[in-house]
Amino acid sequence: MPELRKDPIIKRWVIIATERAKRPNDFKPSAPQFTKEEPCPFCEKKGKSNFTEILTRKENNTQPDKPGWKVKVVTGDSPVLHSEGDLDKKPHGIYDMMDGIGAHEIVIETPEHIASMDSLKPEQIEEVLGVYKERILDLERDERFKYVLVFKNHKTAAGSSSVMHSRSQLIALPACPKNVKGELEGAKRYYDYKDRCVYCDMLAQEEKEKKRVILDAGGFVAIAPFASRFPFETWILPRKHAAYFSKISSKEIKGLAKMLKEILTRRNNLLSDVAYNYILHTAPFRRPKPGYWSTIDCDYHWHIEIIPRLTQVAGFEWGTGFYINPMPPEDAAKFLREGKE
Amino acid sequence: MPELRKDPIIKRWVIIATERAKRPNDFKPSAPQFTKEEPCPFCEKKGKSNFTEILTRKENNTQPDKPGWKVKVVTGDSPVLHSEGDLDKKPHGIYDMMDGIGAHEIVIETPEHIASMDSLKPEQIEEVLGVYKERILDLERDERFKYVLVFKNHKTAAGSSSVMHSRSQLIALPACPKNVKGELEGAKRYYDYKDRCVYCDMLAQEEKEKKRVILDAGGFVAIAPFASRFPFETWILPRKHAAYFSKISSKEIKGLAKMLKEILTRRNNLLSDVAYNYILHTAPFRRPKPGYWSTIDCDYHWHIEIIPRLTQVAGFEWGTGFYINPMPPEDAAKFLREGKE
Repeated sequence: MPELRKDPIIKRWVIIATERAKRPNDFKPSAPQFTKEEPCPFCEKKGKSNFTEILTRKENNTQPDKPGWKVKVVTGDSPVLHSEGDLDKKPHGIYDMMDGIGAHEIVIETPEHIASMDSLKPEQIEEVLGVYKERILDLERDERFKYVLVFKNHKTAAGSSSVMHSRSQLIALPACPKNVKGELEGAKRYYDYKDRCVYCDMLAQEEKEKKRVILDAGGFVAIAPFASRFPFETWILPRKHAAYFSKISSKEIKGLAKMLKEILTRRNNLLSDVAYNYILHTAPFRRPKPGYWSTIDCDYHWHIEIIPRLTQVAGFEWGTGFYINPMPPEDAAKFLREGKE
Repeated sequence: MPELRKDPIIKRWVIIATERAKRPNDFKPSAPQFTKEEPCPFCEKKGKSNFTEILTRKENNTQPDKPGWKVKVVTGDSPVLHSEGDLDKKPHGIYDMMDGIGAHEIVIETPEHIASMDSLKPEQIEEVLGVYKERILDLERDERFKYVLVFKNHKTAAGSSSVMHSRSQLIALPACPKNVKGELEGAKRYYDYKDRCVYCDMLAQEEKEKKRVILDAGGFVAIAPFASRFPFETWILPRKHAAYFSKISSKEIKGLAKMLKEILTRRNNLLSDVAYNYILHTAPFRRPKPGYWSTIDCDYHWHIEIIPRLTQVAGFEWGTGFYINPMPPEDAAKFLREGKE
């Protein structure tokens, strides 16, 4: 069972993945890296796999467990958290820990061996987004979970394995993550002072200034944020205020799928399919019950953050949480707006 | 002039290094990487350089600006922050920004072309630590600065350039960094509750348990922290409570230099000179004046964190601030204690 351990100073949780425990030699840079194209475990026409199917979206009239699926959600053979058991929170001297309970699911976005999400049809991306929604709503029913993180690691430099088959991941967590809490607190602080959502205000300013807007279409706006940490960092926000991604409508999914495909395609053209992560930022499950004057759900605004992995995170960033970005977001937005150098 | 921009939600500062502005092509992975050994700009017997000397520690009886130096502090030709000017804090609509005022200094640890700090003699490491102290005390006099981060990037995977000459960096900042604030707040929260320093309590527990102690010598203790984020993460703490590194005595510098050399050597032997960062964590300048009952300086404990760069930071870590560590710190400590597999 993996262990969740908490840093007593910074309140940062760490998953000690005991079942993945390695020896020093496994980390040596000289150790051979897996690079050759083994049979892809995510393809429709593959042999055996150790995956357990959780959800499959199929064409009409296809048989269960037969070819014809469009999107599939599976658990891998080495999930970072286990779904069976209780949290078993306990102290260890001055430290705190609990069992590594959670869920770790892989969303296989296409049965074909396609490497990159921007090569999928908009309808396929709609299916993927619909699956995110369905899985989040299902995991929310489990009272042990506080948050589901949906994210994508594209290429090895972004933390993916070397298997190039378009997929994303969901991890359900038994504690609201530090970074999500930080965002919620910041948004609440702004709301308490202004009675307005900080993301809505940001969108209003971006639309007026126009300098950092990349694309505005189908109910979604893509911007290069004012304080971009990374070159070509891009945020996609729904124009209409909404705290939970899981309440997205079918019509909105259509707009988001088109926006995502367009932004990823432009990024790909401009930066030669560089490694990237995207992360869905949404409100956690079961936020405190609102009182009469409560601001619940008025203060937070879900969005997607896309981070190209072009620069190295070094000692300075680790030590401070400051970032050094050599590309002003106004320039990045211009390049991405025009889709060329 | 670089710009400092603040994220309005997460209170995270970003340095937009306008003078380093690049075009998309500069980031393409296919662009040639600088790898050949050009004449090292940090060596004693080099040609011209664009460095400005700030401090030089010399052998006795050597001439200024002549060979014979032991450690040198310089500013580079493209510092990330400029030292001339005022902060000029200003709003930009709902956003906040200021001019990129600060100091960025490079500590050249040896005149010889030695790649790695663990190959230096203990006396050389003592000189380097003494220089850290001297520069921090000097920068503290500048009222514009709130914090100095001292860190090392060893090898390109840790964010260094490809020039392999042992060196470290100091960056003086006009705002106390988010990560430092988080640590100070966490330590204060513990002190308010317990009337004890959390780091001192941690040391007491580690010495009792013995499982995560790597080395205990010369007034310093090296541990694999309970909630290690990374395989072989190592913290070095002074056994005696102290908030400020800059108050370190000559005797303590001797102990720390020996400890640092020993830990870096063991790490090197075990992990084949893997890339790493180390970061000095110390209290910021001019903490609020103490009242009669104040806990000032009783709550925080300076230390050094060494982070080997063995695992990739992926979407999950970016999104949550959670980390996945495949190496239990008890195992890492055992390997580092024995210095072999």
